[in-house]
Amino acid sequence: MITTDVLIVGAGPVGLFQVFELGLLGLNAHVVDSAPQPGGQCTELYPDKPIYDIPAIPVCGARELIERLREQIQPFAPVYHFNETVVRVEPNGARFIATTASGAVFDAGAVVIAGGLGAFAPRKLPLEDAALLEGNAVLYKVPNATEFKGQDIVVSGGGDSALDWAIELCATAASVVLVHRTSSFRAAPATVAKMRQACDDGRLQFLEGEIVGLEHVGQALTVVRVSARSGLVRRIDASRLLVFWGLHPALGPIATWGLTLDKNQVVVDTATFQTSIDGIYAVGDINTYPGKRKLILSGFHEATLAAFAIKSRSTDGAKVALQYTTTSPALHRRLGVAVDVADDA
Amino acid sequence: MITTDVLIVGAGPVGLFQVFELGLLGLNAHVVDSAPQPGGQCTELYPDKPIYDIPAIPVCGARELIERLREQIQPFAPVYHFNETVVRVEPNGARFIATTASGAVFDAGAVVIAGGLGAFAPRKLPLEDAALLEGNAVLYKVPNATEFKGQDIVVSGGGDSALDWAIELCATAASVVLVHRTSSFRAAPATVAKMRQACDDGRLQFLEGEIVGLEHVGQALTVVRVSARSGLVRRIDASRLLVFWGLHPALGPIATWGLTLDKNQVVVDTATFQTSIDGIYAVGDINTYPGKRKLILSGFHEATLAAFAIKSRSTDGAKVALQYTTTSPALHRRLGVAVDVADDA
Repeated sequence: MITTDVLIVGAGPVGLFQVFELGLLGLNAHVVDSAPQPGGQCTELYPDKPIYDIPAIPVCGARELIERLREQIQPFAPVYHFNETVVRVEPNGARFIATTASGAVFDAGAVVIAGGLGAFAPRKLPLEDAALLEGNAVLYKVPNATEFKGQDIVVSGGGDSALDWAIELCATAASVVLVHRTSSFRAAPATVAKMRQACDDGRLQFLEGEIVGLEHVGQALTVVRVSARSGLVRRIDASRLLVFWGLHPALGPIATWGLTLDKNQVVVDTATFQTSIDGIYAVGDINTYPGKRKLILSGFHEATLAAFAIKSRSTDGAKVALQYTTTSPALHRRLGVAVDVADDA
Repeated sequence: MITTDVLIVGAGPVGLFQVFELGLLGLNAHVVDSAPQPGGQCTELYPDKPIYDIPAIPVCGARELIERLREQIQPFAPVYHFNETVVRVEPNGARFIATTASGAVFDAGAVVIAGGLGAFAPRKLPLEDAALLEGNAVLYKVPNATEFKGQDIVVSGGGDSALDWAIELCATAASVVLVHRTSSFRAAPATVAKMRQACDDGRLQFLEGEIVGLEHVGQALTVVRVSARSGLVRRIDASRLLVFWGLHPALGPIATWGLTLDKNQVVVDTATFQTSIDGIYAVGDINTYPGKRKLILSGFHEATLAAFAIKSRSTDGAKVALQYTTTSPALHRRLGVAVDVADDA
């Protein structure tokens, strides 16, 4: 059992900043995320695309944003639990007992859901045979590229992941066929150009169409059937099928916690960002309230007011005074910055 | 008459970011501030002290924060009107006619009050004679240092401004006496050391006490009377009195616009940050709502929701779709960033 002031579910930008605002008020936090690293949908969906609307940061990538936030919250030494999903949260007096899928148990004074769009899972090929072969011949990510050497590979998708892998694997595979339902691609123009060049060079083939069936012998994939735009079905010899159809957010176990939801969003009060359950808060893209916009900068505000509400709840409703990081010696001590530095700078 | 989509009152960090969020939605803005430069209370009160709680910026001074925001909003080319106070705002159909103290007139589709603590005014010496001599022998700022050459000067105050001016003026004045109610100073330690050195050298005198009276012949100041801690009153020959007691925020003319106030704060709705008057919004430290905390990061959120509400109001209540700066070609065009750069980065 891990005892903590606050359990934060989600290590995206808003979950990370939640650690900071709690830390300023003297509260510690553990952070659980189903992904293997912090960053949430930002780094999952667009790690290097520029973001222009973080206030006072004219431009930065998601990766940089997360690095900046990790540096900022470092004085408060949050404990991370990656590759973990909180499956159950139960009240225990004024506190909560939270259990993860792997069996870790937290005793937390409050819970903040900073779950973004929910847990991310790859969009899957809706074929029974695909489920049967998943993890062996049918894959939604590439754990080890060397396994594909000498194989006949079908890659499905039209985004950066699909094109990048098709281009990379055709250097060592026996054959690579890229299958996409249209000849227009969502990938970066430079990547599309590289892919076209690989086709012109005969290293890669592109087939416009949809995967309609798989043929296999036991766990061994033999053929991917593709329905071309003409309606004709073509049989492509293949030993591996890689599907990159993007990630699909799902609210996941949070849906079962008994919170009031509105269209899969968690309803909160804008003064405290508390949910319908006393002591459970929701911040960032997962919550909803009148005027809500799914923007990172709004999540920062929400996390801040939630921190004040949690502090007040942890002190039996006492009024929590606002102190400024610019001038408060108490906050300087918590931040670990020497008072002299602050006064002379 | 200047026609604008939105008139923003206040060029502090939140007023500046308001320009950005309006710009993303295709709305232009003029910004009026009573100060001679942007930055608001931040740069006025603590230009170089570190701020630690701007999200994703582990540390920065107020001056740097304002520079970063000005860079960020530069694509939207706001027009600034410094040293100007909006004294009157009157509805004109769905629009507003706003008039400044100097007589400039704006025809604006909406008005956003980003007025921070209000307009800043120097704290004044509470003596009738001081009001009589203000602007001539009694001054709260130094418009032209050369005017003080050869004068007998009393400087009052214990902060950086008072000490800096006492040190600077004693090089050319006939005499300088620094008066402060205590011998402990709020100024930077290095400045205090310089002041003490000037006293040791006989260039400057320090007198602990309070100014209790002025003697003058018409507009000509002759003597400043100071009550020392002993209770004894000393008469100091002086032709100029400089008072640096800091700035004092005042709601100013906004108090007369007919807005619903709560303890001098403007009451707003948290879905739109609209005040009690349709089409007038308030963001940042000047507003109040349940849970309000006077933090810059909350102002950023408030300015963002206000921008969406203003956009919707300007299009007869049409729903305004949320687009992301990371992916929207329309926003990239407005930001002036090449689409290729955004897609390849």
